[in-house]
Amino acid sequence: MAQVGIVMGSDSDMPVMAKAADILDKLGISYEMTILSAHREPEEFFAYAKGAEAKGFKVIIAGAGMAAHLPGMCAAIFPMPVIGIPMHTTSLGGRDSLYSIVQMPSGIPVATVAINGGVNAGLLAAKILATSDEALLQKLKDYSENMKQEVQAKDRKLREVGYKNYTK
Amino acid sequence: MAQVGIVMGSDSDMPVMAKAADILDKLGISYEMTILSAHREPEEFFAYAKGAEAKGFKVIIAGAGMAAHLPGMCAAIFPMPVIGIPMHTTSLGGRDSLYSIVQMPSGIPVATVAINGGVNAGLLAAKILATSDEALLQKLKDYSENMKQEVQAKDRKLREVGYKNYTK
Amino acid sequence: MAQVGIVMGSDSDMPVMAKAADILDKLGISYEMTILSAHREPEEFFAYAKGAEAKGFKVIIAGAGMAAHLPGMCAAIFPMPVIGIPMHTTSLGGRDSLYSIVQMPSGIPVATVAINGGVNAGLLAAKILATSDEALLQKLKDYSENMKQEVQAKDRKLREVGYKNYTK
Amino acid sequence: MAQVGIVMGSDSDMPVMAKAADILDKLGISYEMTILSAHREPEEFFAYAKGAEAKGFKVIIAGAGMAAHLPGMCAAIFPMPVIGIPMHTTSLGGRDSLYSIVQMPSGIPVATVAINGGVNAGLLAAKILATSDEALLQKLKDYSENMKQEVQAKDRKLREVGYKNYTK
Amino acid sequence: MAQVGIVMGSDSDMPVMAKAADILDKLGISYEMTILSAHREPEEFFAYAKGAEAKGFKVIIAGAGMAAHLPGMCAAIFPMPVIGIPMHTTSLGGRDSLYSIVQMPSGIPVATVAINGGVNAGLLAAKILATSDEALLQKLKDYSENMKQEVQAKDRKLREVGYKNYTK
Amino acid sequence: MAQVGIVMGSDSDMPVMAKAADILDKLGISYEMTILSAHREPEEFFAYAKGAEAKGFKVIIAGAGMAAHLPGMCAAIFPMPVIGIPMHTTSLGGRDSLYSIVQMPSGIPVATVAINGGVNAGLLAAKILATSDEALLQKLKDYSENMKQEVQAKDRKLREVGYKNYTK
Amino acid sequence: MAQVGIVMGSDSDMPVMAKAADILDKLGISYEMTILSAHREPEEFFAYAKGAEAKGFKVIIAGAGMAAHLPGMCAAIFPMPVIGIPMHTTSLGGRDSLYSIVQMPSGIPVATVAINGGVNAGLLAAKILATSDEALLQKLKDYSENMKQEVQAKDRKLREVGYKNYTK
Amino acid sequence: MAQVGIVMGSDSDMPVMAKAADILDKLGISYEMTILSAHREPEEFFAYAKGAEAKGFKVIIAGAGMAAHLPGMCAAIFPMPVIGIPMHTTSLGGRDSLYSIVQMPSGIPVATVAINGGVNAGLLAAKILATSDEALLQKLKDYSENMKQEVQAKDRKLREVGYKNYTK
Repeated sequence: MAQVGIVMGSDSDMPVMAKAADILDKLGISYEMTILSAHREPEEFFAYAKGAEAKGFKVIIAGAGMAAHLPGMCAAIFPMPVIGIPMHTTSLGGRDSLYSIVQMPSGIPVATVAINGGVNAGLLAAKILATSDEALLQKLKDYSENMKQEVQAKDRKLREVGYKNYTK
Repeated sequence: MAQVGIVMGSDSDMPVMAKAADILDKLGISYEMTILSAHREPEEFFAYAKGAEAKGFKVIIAGAGMAAHLPGMCAAIFPMPVIGIPMHTTSLGGRDSLYSIVQMPSGIPVATVAINGGVNAGLLAAKILATSDEALLQKLKDYSENMKQEVQAKDRKLREVGYKNYTK
Repeated sequence: MAQVGIVMGSDSDMPVMAKAADILDKLGISYEMTILSAHREPEEFFAYAKGAEAKGFKVIIAGAGMAAHLPGMCAAIFPMPVIGIPMHTTSLGGRDSLYSIVQMPSGIPVATVAINGGVNAGLLAAKILATSDEALLQKLKDYSENMKQEVQAKDRKLREVGYKNYTK
Repeated sequence: MAQVGIVMGSDSDMPVMAKAADILDKLGISYEMTILSAHREPEEFFAYAKGAEAKGFKVIIAGAGMAAHLPGMCAAIFPMPVIGIPMHTTSLGGRDSLYSIVQMPSGIPVATVAINGGVNAGLLAAKILATSDEALLQKLKDYSENMKQEVQAKDRKLREVGYKNYTK
Repeated sequence: MAQVGIVMGSDSDMPVMAKAADILDKLGISYEMTILSAHREPEEFFAYAKGAEAKGFKVIIAGAGMAAHLPGMCAAIFPMPVIGIPMHTTSLGGRDSLYSIVQMPSGIPVATVAINGGVNAGLLAAKILATSDEALLQKLKDYSENMKQEVQAKDRKLREVGYKNYTK
Repeated sequence: MAQVGIVMGSDSDMPVMAKAADILDKLGISYEMTILSAHREPEEFFAYAKGAEAKGFKVIIAGAGMAAHLPGMCAAIFPMPVIGIPMHTTSLGGRDSLYSIVQMPSGIPVATVAINGGVNAGLLAAKILATSDEALLQKLKDYSENMKQEVQAKDRKLREVGYKNYTK
Repeated sequence: MAQVGIVMGSDSDMPVMAKAADILDKLGISYEMTILSAHREPEEFFAYAKGAEAKGFKVIIAGAGMAAHLPGMCAAIFPMPVIGIPMHTTSLGGRDSLYSIVQMPSGIPVATVAINGGVNAGLLAAKILATSDEALLQKLKDYSENMKQEVQAKDRKLREVGYKNYTK
Repeated sequence: MAQVGIVMGSDSDMPVMAKAADILDKLGISYEMTILSAHREPEEFFAYAKGAEAKGFKVIIAGAGMAAHLPGMCAAIFPMPVIGIPMHTTSLGGRDSLYSIVQMPSGIPVATVAINGGVNAGLLAAKILATSDEALLQKLKDYSENMKQEVQAKDRKLREVGYKNYTK
């Protein structure tokens, strides 16, 4: 039984959504990934959102672009947290996706992350689950420690080679 | 049997939606007005949108603000034209509503009018119906003729009183 | 006698306008496609817009970019629905085209679709005609059914190959 | 015979357009002011724009808001300079008017001034006429000298009363 | 021991933050509310963020305006979910706050809600806690049911009094 | 003695400014082209702007990008029309240039054309000069006639080859 | 001999500029405040900017709105730091002022603070002077300490009265 | 002992930050360059910012992108000037970085330069140090003189080869 549902409106969102899945894999969190359009198959969408709790999902990660309705419609039906990922768009840079996801009316929150923020969506799902899972919380602390060490390694390299050679 | 469904996500949208209803009244077009939230009552919304064709609706006018999903979700289900009215919003001036309504993905058009464009939504519904209703088309031509005469009356007043006295 | 007029201000708009024509072709709707600039040949434009009703047009699809006046000027003259397609622009991403088309003053609606939304303009024209054409309405329902099946096929592929292999 | 045509799409633009007229009055430039909607009375608009040269106009000042087509359509027909004034708008602050006026396609320039820039539109018209009118050029230089002296008087007041008393 | 920390950078944010507290009160969730500026008292901020886990917080709700660093800096230190509320601002309408909160770099998510979205921040905190609290989940379902009934009551009123009398 | 001064803040603006020069060449208008930075050589700039009238310039065309001060500073000194061309910019698409040029304070107009609008700047200069030059006015009318014929030729090609072959 | 020049393009900027002066007063920094328009009195502006170093200014604080050229033109002439304050504007919220001030070309920096950021401009001037003035640096540290204590007093009040009584 | 600290949140900012270092090298100003993330290593960041004064830094140049907290958090701790460089971003063009850096609350200024403005950040740091360093001030004047001569050389080339050959 998957803890997290990952859902995207179009398979063009896959490269971003894959980053969320990668994080969940790395942290040992089970998930189910689905391509599902609230606009092109509303009945299937409805069934999915209504059935999500029964499947055991604790969090849904939904990514969509342009007039991005998928995260908000999930949040209208699924009673636990929905994380929305606004996709970058050619014409408006993802502002359309961002506004369509973050500006939800009172009563129906979507936990919105950055434009194309697949990694952060995965981490946020993990943090949510970690509120009741000590072992997962420890893994998240280790993840943060690793990030710190990566930055420190880059700084050491800079001191060793100098900025003029850094990017060569 | 109403020809047009007018639906709004919140009763705060009423002043704008009322303008659409006023135009339909003036042109003798039957309509049904409903307060219905895709987010707060998704099942009721779903039943409404699926039943709209059977009720005889030929057009739906949907108004919504912020992450405005109502018009797009109507368009996902109702097979005839959906007209979307983006509501003005305090923080983003209605850009959020506009992008959430107009930037629909390929396959699911929403006929979007100006921010707070209630009158134009009503007129657009009438123009759609007029594609198969000669009498209504004539009423629309008369409406245009009246608009023209109103502008001309203002111009005559300007010539009579001069611009310094015009707004007194 | 064509049911739909497709008109563009510049032949650089052709790739977007062609998508509208493709949809009309697919749905068996007759149309006439014209390159016509309201700015560069205002008299010819005027004659076109005034003659459109007599030619049998029920809908005009007008695409334009930047200070996109063509759809709005069509709507000032042609009494039935005008659908506006805002073109993507290099500097402002199409916001200029979008605002110039959607923000029409009260009395003169333009049914605006997404930036570069050629497919949706064609579908919206079809939906308008389908308000009085049962056979066309059925074709639109079939079109929607096909879209649904395409998404479902993608979801099946995802389940079969997994997300890491999906885009390979 | 008026040298300048001042034209506005709606009498709600009057307070801004009046500032242009005030400047022309002050500089002794003849003008004709007209309320004329390109959208609501396209034939009258057409006749106005085509007849403008014969009336003796050397410059047209056109103000409009939202999807502001009036200046651009004047520029499509009138062969001498058209000055466009974008009106402030409630929802988009006048960005819609600005983009609809300034982003004209190649071949059809509109000389655009600031949002609600009625004074500057009047001054720009005067500067255009001053390219062939020495006496008017001198008046414009005097106008600039007066502006300078007004700023200097304010600076003297500041030095006399101090900034804490300046706005009391 | 409070489950939720509510923190704001300035007491001018209180009206929005109070709405989050009201929701938590209504749902029986314990919280601690603090005024704390990451900019004006960075050491105190640091101590707060580092001590939050030990105090028993499972979620932090952080509100801030303009260059809103408070939510992101909390997320840099606190290992469980941080919810960010972008405050409306006079000059940029809250876009500055929104971008400063939602556009977090990879590795440090902030769960962002709408501009001034105090209610939704409270609800999102509750939904996070409800992932491991069946009783709270039921309260959230009851809350949704109540929202639905409120919309339905408004729709009934509309049908009874008609739209012309609705807002009187 | 040149009638028009063309000035740019940086030689990176040359491709756009060259289009203005090309139009002036085509219409037989004399001009002088200068690279001159108000920021990097303020004294030289000052001397240029003050000397422009004596050199016989009737119009200055000034192009600049980002915080584009060159057109506005020319307009502060030169008493006849200054035409501003906002340059496209990588980060803000030219909005920075546009606002810095068009939003001039009352008293100091800059006649602003579209982002990268070199052709229109040249045409606007010509239209200004044509207010007192019948022969030039006739050339401008011929230019417009040519533009019309170019569009009509494209439309004929479309009718001959069909839209599917048009761009091949 | 004043250490700081405070200059504004219009006396409508006074309420914001006064805040900068108040801070300098509080920190015991001498300054000279001037109303001076780069657009309306370019020669006087030039003389001011060129004479600023000789007067002993180490920093200039320049405020301006719309196409705000004053800070950038000061920076073109004065060789030490220029601090720019973008003024809030009705139509564009101060984005026009901000872009016109911050987006300076390479070689001519303006140290830009927030829209209407008079207090921060004064503090930034003080911080610049404090790089070579230990006593002033100590005053700035005291100022920061006071800010911290003010926030802490607000937090204590919140804990005492509770959030429901806080704003009463 | 370095006079300037250059710090960046990510090594992807290196190409822009290197330009600041290049300028400092050219002007003979000592600096220390560090890769340091306020988000990924908050304790290390804190130690850095608190220790900066003791290391002898007079100015910090901080570059960051997206929700760019690094400059503002430096300014919360370091008592002398902090210069912020907003990084260009793919989706929002750097508006997110710009707003997150420039819109600082009252009391905590960040001296913000243009998006990707590495050169100007270096120059601004130099101008700050030049307020108490005559020799450095002279170097800055020489730098400005060189910039002037470069523009003049370009203008001479234009006059020699003509604009049509300029970019060949």
